[in-house]
Amino acid sequence: MSRYLTPTLAALKPYTPGEQPQDQQYIKLNTNESPYPPSPAVAAALTAEEADKLRLYPDPACAGLMAAAAKHFGLAPNQIMPGNGSDENLFFALRAFCDSTRPLAYADVTYGCYGVWCDLMHIPSHILPLEEDFSLDPEKYHGLGETIVIANPNAPTGLALTPGQIEGILKANPDNVVIVDEAYVDFGAESCVPLIHQYDNLLVVQTFSKSRQLAGARLGLAMGNAELIADLNRVKFSLNPYNINRLTLKAGQAALEDTAYFEATRNKIIETRAWTAAELRKRGFVLTDSRTNFLFARTSRMEGGALYRALKAKGVLVRHFDGARVSDYLRITIGTPQQMEALVKALDEILEG
Amino acid sequence: MSRYLTPTLAALKPYTPGEQPQDQQYIKLNTNESPYPPSPAVAAALTAEEADKLRLYPDPACAGLMAAAAKHFGLAPNQIMPGNGSDENLFFALRAFCDSTRPLAYADVTYGCYGVWCDLMHIPSHILPLEEDFSLDPEKYHGLGETIVIANPNAPTGLALTPGQIEGILKANPDNVVIVDEAYVDFGAESCVPLIHQYDNLLVVQTFSKSRQLAGARLGLAMGNAELIADLNRVKFSLNPYNINRLTLKAGQAALEDTAYFEATRNKIIETRAWTAAELRKRGFVLTDSRTNFLFARTSRMEGGALYRALKAKGVLVRHFDGARVSDYLRITIGTPQQMEALVKALDEILEG
Repeated sequence: MSRYLTPTLAALKPYTPGEQPQDQQYIKLNTNESPYPPSPAVAAALTAEEADKLRLYPDPACAGLMAAAAKHFGLAPNQIMPGNGSDENLFFALRAFCDSTRPLAYADVTYGCYGVWCDLMHIPSHILPLEEDFSLDPEKYHGLGETIVIANPNAPTGLALTPGQIEGILKANPDNVVIVDEAYVDFGAESCVPLIHQYDNLLVVQTFSKSRQLAGARLGLAMGNAELIADLNRVKFSLNPYNINRLTLKAGQAALEDTAYFEATRNKIIETRAWTAAELRKRGFVLTDSRTNFLFARTSRMEGGALYRALKAKGVLVRHFDGARVSDYLRITIGTPQQMEALVKALDEILEG
Repeated sequence: MSRYLTPTLAALKPYTPGEQPQDQQYIKLNTNESPYPPSPAVAAALTAEEADKLRLYPDPACAGLMAAAAKHFGLAPNQIMPGNGSDENLFFALRAFCDSTRPLAYADVTYGCYGVWCDLMHIPSHILPLEEDFSLDPEKYHGLGETIVIANPNAPTGLALTPGQIEGILKANPDNVVIVDEAYVDFGAESCVPLIHQYDNLLVVQTFSKSRQLAGARLGLAMGNAELIADLNRVKFSLNPYNINRLTLKAGQAALEDTAYFEATRNKIIETRAWTAAELRKRGFVLTDSRTNFLFARTSRMEGGALYRALKAKGVLVRHFDGARVSDYLRITIGTPQQMEALVKALDEILEG
């Protein structure tokens, strides 16, 4: 840290992303990536002609991708904005709809970036604890008078609210924006996108990193009524008008249009999740009802941190969080059936050994 | 604008990027892109294997690109940080080194984003007017006690300071960061990167958008001593840890390593600039001594806005700014020799017609 850094930044605790070892020697089940490559249409979209066009700035309006997304989600193009990953859209949304007098309400156990962004932008955090079983009581979010963000399904708990429950929160906070972070929605929860037509305070954020296999391309979509999206574009054009590169625009559009591949791969993940959950339960693990591409699991036979380290020593990388209520747990990304068999074998060796 | 937007955002005037017509019917000399495609090594780097790897997050440390950049610039990898375009690095730097009590000093005629970022982040702007001839008097930046940003060469004026002049500013502001925005440095100015070894308050920002033909890939580099770069990484890991996508990392590294192509294309631009400037001077235009890939030119025969519109009607797109001291001028990107011949022909038709 230099002596030139502002006090706000000096005091901040940045988010710690999951380990990204570059040597690929691990079975990597720690950052919720897909075990399957993107649609073959993605590689086909990255032509030499597109490489040559890199001399030109991208379309700041991202019209091609927006048209494809509008068709896919049943929205108008001006109800959608792409971001350099979902993180950027979420950060833009906090920039637009929160400030030092307008706090952000969110759960105690949820995506770690919400709190970091609040600290960075001097936004007060209103942290609402989840219930004992990690479920979220929607009534606690009624009438808050604050901007709200809910990861649905939540991470790392994997639990989801119904659109009806979200609708209750929207109705009970008509003067505040409710951000629903649907990073994992495609793996077994129901999306709130259809509610956009009825609620002008709903902003839904989705990502291409999980169910569309494009974590490395950095692409997310924010969806809401046209005025909310215009607000986000105001932030984008004030910060980084060319925030999405040309190749990602092409890759994203190709992935979005290959709906058959999307369905096939997410169904494989859901099947493998069911198999893995059953195997873990057989071994006495306690699991939440995950609607995501990961499991959130603990065993009374070994503390979470110790089990994480033992798995890593056996070449299986999972995620462990040090936080108060979650340190007993592991967050385990669903990989291929073979990878999950290797996980179960490693667990048996560690716990029976 | 929605009723949910914060007052700060509602009051803000976003930056207006140059027009980006998507139909390619114009000779496009308005956003300082290169008329030449990127190095063939860029297309070669975008393999089907890389497309498949998009399922994985990028390396947040960007180690491959940082190693190549360190070698190229004679720095250590921890003295460099990549951004999602130079804009992101500049925005991160203002985040790190300015706040409501630490103003940013910059010229009245310079890159328009500096002021927008200040407004967005509640950073006071200290605007120092350029001299009558658009030159920058370095003495006016001595002992300011403020963070400083200098585009060198400047845009849209095209004029450059020497590293000796920048060094004077660094010495005269030891307690403040001096950001040197070298977006255009490769076209005829001298870089301040070697000064990084002597001054811990120097941050140099470069881009791959101009001299490396990758405007569409969005990539910039911030360079400075390791502590300043650690500060910028603190911002990055607080905002968007995976800010650079995998394909851009590969494309950038390939472009950086093809130094022969870089030299050949920038020399062509410099030659074409000299030819174009001479042709314009023959026709009575007044030009600054541009060290960039654009010319900044005016003629007493027609007002800037009218000439911009007349050129656009003839299929030649250049940039016109409405601001106080610059509305007489056009900013004309250097294209291929053929494109510049077409520009001169169009000007003759308009002004003689």
